[in-house]
Amino acid sequence: MDITMPTFVQIIEFLGTFAFAISGIRLASAKQFDWFGAYVVGMATAVGGGTFRDMMLGTTPFWMTTPIYVICSALALLCVIMFSRYLIRLNNTFFLFDAIGLALFAIVGIQKTLDFGYPLWVAIIMGTMTGAAGGVIRDVFINEIPLIFRKEIYAMACVIGGVVFGICDYLEFNTVVTHLLCGTSVFLTRLLAVKYHICLPTLKGDEHQDNNIL
Amino acid sequence: MDITMPTFVQIIEFLGTFAFAISGIRLASAKQFDWFGAYVVGMATAVGGGTFRDMMLGTTPFWMTTPIYVICSALALLCVIMFSRYLIRLNNTFFLFDAIGLALFAIVGIQKTLDFGYPLWVAIIMGTMTGAAGGVIRDVFINEIPLIFRKEIYAMACVIGGVVFGICDYLEFNTVVTHLLCGTSVFLTRLLAVKYHICLPTLKGDEHQDNNIL
Amino acid sequence: MDITMPTFVQIIEFLGTFAFAISGIRLASAKQFDWFGAYVVGMATAVGGGTFRDMMLGTTPFWMTTPIYVICSALALLCVIMFSRYLIRLNNTFFLFDAIGLALFAIVGIQKTLDFGYPLWVAIIMGTMTGAAGGVIRDVFINEIPLIFRKEIYAMACVIGGVVFGICDYLEFNTVVTHLLCGTSVFLTRLLAVKYHICLPTLKGDEHQDNNIL
Repeated sequence: MDITMPTFVQIIEFLGTFAFAISGIRLASAKQFDWFGAYVVGMATAVGGGTFRDMMLGTTPFWMTTPIYVICSALALLCVIMFSRYLIRLNNTFFLFDAIGLALFAIVGIQKTLDFGYPLWVAIIMGTMTGAAGGVIRDVFINEIPLIFRKEIYAMACVIGGVVFGICDYLEFNTVVTHLLCGTSVFLTRLLAVKYHICLPTLKGDEHQDNNIL
Repeated sequence: MDITMPTFVQIIEFLGTFAFAISGIRLASAKQFDWFGAYVVGMATAVGGGTFRDMMLGTTPFWMTTPIYVICSALALLCVIMFSRYLIRLNNTFFLFDAIGLALFAIVGIQKTLDFGYPLWVAIIMGTMTGAAGGVIRDVFINEIPLIFRKEIYAMACVIGGVVFGICDYLEFNTVVTHLLCGTSVFLTRLLAVKYHICLPTLKGDEHQDNNIL
Repeated sequence: MDITMPTFVQIIEFLGTFAFAISGIRLASAKQFDWFGAYVVGMATAVGGGTFRDMMLGTTPFWMTTPIYVICSALALLCVIMFSRYLIRLNNTFFLFDAIGLALFAIVGIQKTLDFGYPLWVAIIMGTMTGAAGGVIRDVFINEIPLIFRKEIYAMACVIGGVVFGICDYLEFNTVVTHLLCGTSVFLTRLLAVKYHICLPTLKGDEHQDNNIL
């Protein structure tokens, strides 16, 4: 991998972190959080998934090794404070950033877990957690039922990307190609899911089932 | 311990995991979660407590070392999808599985913590966390006040089992006997609590007490 | 540091833990939690922030090394059970304990993180987490939107204390002086914030912004 690739990946990662932080900050704003609360929710959305992954892998959470994520979340806050009324027009842009971020976070999570010597199925779970757990933490903080458990395919896109990663790995593809194919499949799955409102089936729940079971 | 014991324990552990996952999936269904969301909630209910225990003990979360828990949760999801309308009749069966699972998770948590060299009081907390924290995580995900903090004795059964474990250990009982007595006391406490609706006392709360204290 | 200082710090730490546990137990009471649930919420409020800090630092959670925190939370529960109707009159006392606890927890978190070799910005985040994350966990358990994200300056006081700590450190002040100035600035910030109802600005949220972004 030459010197251009990491820079390219870093830009993408920055944009993904930014999009994740923006989503957390905006949802926090809708609940009248103050600036600090909004910042915490934005930061948690951006780095929460990777933090849990790293704690489970037994390594130092990634954001503690470089201030870039803290700064990126602060820029996202500044951006929402200054331009909040114009941000709605940029929804599609942010959606694209978010989908790109999701794809990149999934790749990072899968590769890091494999590098630690875990099998593919653990890596897929960790990739999915890296991409999607931040959104769950965000929704717990703002006291809402996690959106990703009920709306268009989101976390599932990471699982699909993980399977593609595994197939590429099995076919002994080059790392760059594997990453590109994995990321593209996450991104496209997410794009198609939102465009055509593809949701996973829901379970028919019975409200009275918790009589005896805790 | 002969070759039959681990197999017996494994069957019990599988049933316990299954019962915990079922409880998570069914409560998620009642909130219109999709299949993926229900799976995550079921898995978190089953392995969440042990995962926090292992992160605090500084070791790899147990479910990352064998795919059995991921598979078991998937079977629970399949089971709810296919037989949801018949499951209500099985409430008592699932309650028994759940109580057995609770007992077994408590034993596993206590023994593992003692094996790491911690004193009994830490082991009792970890055993209780292994058994009961999954249910708390489940209720946070579905945005409800954790049930185990308000209904019949649940987590307290693990504490009682832990005390029994400590007494057996002090009297230098054989490991198998210690485990059996500990597990039986958790199971019976839970059974009696639900049969006779034994709840811990609640605190008389005053709604206006948070004027100055955060 | 002579033998008197640790004892003084330990008394302060005990009072801080006690005040944090009381706040958790009282808010849990208002939601009809049982004794066990209230105890768990109280304990989580008191040690939750430090536990996450220690898991991120890759070290054993501090409360697992001495039973003092478990005992302190139990005393807080006993106190609420016996004197709940008289506690309202003590609101100002508890507020002072809470502010002192916040200051001390921030110092402990910052110093411990620096001792692990992390830079100041990580230490400030960890100090803030040690002081304020317990209150967030408490509010997640009782299913409320975290108070500290919306009311008078709370977590921000830890950040200010952290900056003061950094300045003292840069000026090569003595450890005791650094700790005192850091703690005093946290305590005074919190005191002034509540006295004059100083809140951070809130973001103007638009309720309809989550159309496309997750």
